[in-house]
Amino acid sequence: MLTVFGSTALDTIRTPTRVLKDVLGGAATFAGISASFFVDTGLIAVVGTDFPKKYRNLLSRYLDLSGFVTQKGKTFRYDGSYDDTLSKRTTNKTELNVLGQFKPIVPEKYRKSEFVYLANNDPDQNSSLIKEFDNVRFSMCDTIEYWIATKRASVIKMIKTVDAVVINDEEAKLLTKEHNLIKCAKKMMSWGAKYVIIKKGEHGSLLFVEDIIFPSVAFSLEDIVDPTGAGDSFAGAMIGYLANKRKTSLSEIKKAVIYGNVLGSFAVEKWGLDGLTKITKKQIEKRVKQYQNMVEF
Amino acid sequence: MLTVFGSTALDTIRTPTRVLKDVLGGAATFAGISASFFVDTGLIAVVGTDFPKKYRNLLSRYLDLSGFVTQKGKTFRYDGSYDDTLSKRTTNKTELNVLGQFKPIVPEKYRKSEFVYLANNDPDQNSSLIKEFDNVRFSMCDTIEYWIATKRASVIKMIKTVDAVVINDEEAKLLTKEHNLIKCAKKMMSWGAKYVIIKKGEHGSLLFVEDIIFPSVAFSLEDIVDPTGAGDSFAGAMIGYLANKRKTSLSEIKKAVIYGNVLGSFAVEKWGLDGLTKITKKQIEKRVKQYQNMVEF
Repeated sequence: MLTVFGSTALDTIRTPTRVLKDVLGGAATFAGISASFFVDTGLIAVVGTDFPKKYRNLLSRYLDLSGFVTQKGKTFRYDGSYDDTLSKRTTNKTELNVLGQFKPIVPEKYRKSEFVYLANNDPDQNSSLIKEFDNVRFSMCDTIEYWIATKRASVIKMIKTVDAVVINDEEAKLLTKEHNLIKCAKKMMSWGAKYVIIKKGEHGSLLFVEDIIFPSVAFSLEDIVDPTGAGDSFAGAMIGYLANKRKTSLSEIKKAVIYGNVLGSFAVEKWGLDGLTKITKKQIEKRVKQYQNMVEF
Repeated sequence: MLTVFGSTALDTIRTPTRVLKDVLGGAATFAGISASFFVDTGLIAVVGTDFPKKYRNLLSRYLDLSGFVTQKGKTFRYDGSYDDTLSKRTTNKTELNVLGQFKPIVPEKYRKSEFVYLANNDPDQNSSLIKEFDNVRFSMCDTIEYWIATKRASVIKMIKTVDAVVINDEEAKLLTKEHNLIKCAKKMMSWGAKYVIIKKGEHGSLLFVEDIIFPSVAFSLEDIVDPTGAGDSFAGAMIGYLANKRKTSLSEIKKAVIYGNVLGSFAVEKWGLDGLTKITKKQIEKRVKQYQNMVEF
């Protein structure tokens, strides 16, 4: 099985055409649901007593919730606005609420997880949580600007504790203080990451392992409505695919990246989580085939 | 054979590490030399009496110069500065000089060219020059911000007169007033282009024909020294490859795009034209193979 540790949020998403208020979001929500198309996935996360029952029900349809905790107080809230191009997001407000004091506990049955995904949590928390798993074959983490700006040394330390780092291009540059993405990846590898996956949004991603680079395009889409959660869906699909195969050969990791691109493309086509929750495994496989045809030459 | 019409320039290129002063450049120079690796290529361009003999000799090693005219006055000069990331260029000065009054003439022996590339010239000039060819199988044009800003209607008219438009992403958005690159391409196709190729620099390119999209990554490079001429080298290789094959099937056009990516990658690895002039056909074929291995999954 796969364990995902990260945030479950109530998001307010403002785009030029529509505002979504207090909808279910969070890195672990997107990553976990995306992964769940491939493998049994458990979620370690916290919400407040205001967390709507319908959202808990939705999560429970996709995820094992043994590690999902409700604490007194309000759920983590995020409020962000996209520009006209939907490529730039400004944060209006972040309220940590119950997430601020959360002490994650790994449920007994998750300790044997061979695959673990640590979403963009406090890097110290990620570094300590990964030690509670007895049998990890492949672990992956993400991080965000906030932690790079406030706890860079801890982010670097966290990278040593995992197999793979998945990170977006701007944050990779910020973290490594390099402009060129190959140089960024090499630096993260020198810090101890065996695999680095740099996400480039509509431009796809770059996978690095040893001296191999595997660039892949995004699945081309004409109509994007809400980019929220695309990167988390990418990461979730990637590790979910690998957890299902129980293999981490280069060939499977490349395929995992393709699934990442495909789930990322579904995520942005509809509002909020609908991009993931309205699809079927069959549609995923169909799009992977379309992807293969698209890039063939 | 292939005919290339466009600018030959004396460039001043300022990067954070080095300044090149009055070096041979220009869209047609890069495109023509890039194309010449694949097919006999003729250049229609103008320079002033100050154009150094060594540069004329260099051009004559790669290109037929029957349409290369020297006129009284100074050669077209461009002066631009790159930022620290080498991804943004600011124009310091453009001196049209002899280019301002140039009336291009198609030499008799070029009139039978089946392949014609119109670089980023005045769109009215491009539209009228293409009519002087008797036997065109495949014509392609590029354009730049300057013409979009000053002669947008003429740019749109030019697009009707050619088979393919090759254009960079920012200019495609500016020209079509769309954010999404698929929408940009569709609009250019609605204006009469059968093929649209959108260049995205380090992120590769998108080819559009009918309802087919072929996205391709750039060849990954760690050390880029001078991005000048990358897009022109891309376009030149593309049409040079096709002119050599004398085929414009989808499969060959996709391969042409791959050669475009590869020649673009050589162009940025060295200063000025050195990226193109220091390579051999064998190195090109080797990198195409590396490209194929790189993207395989």
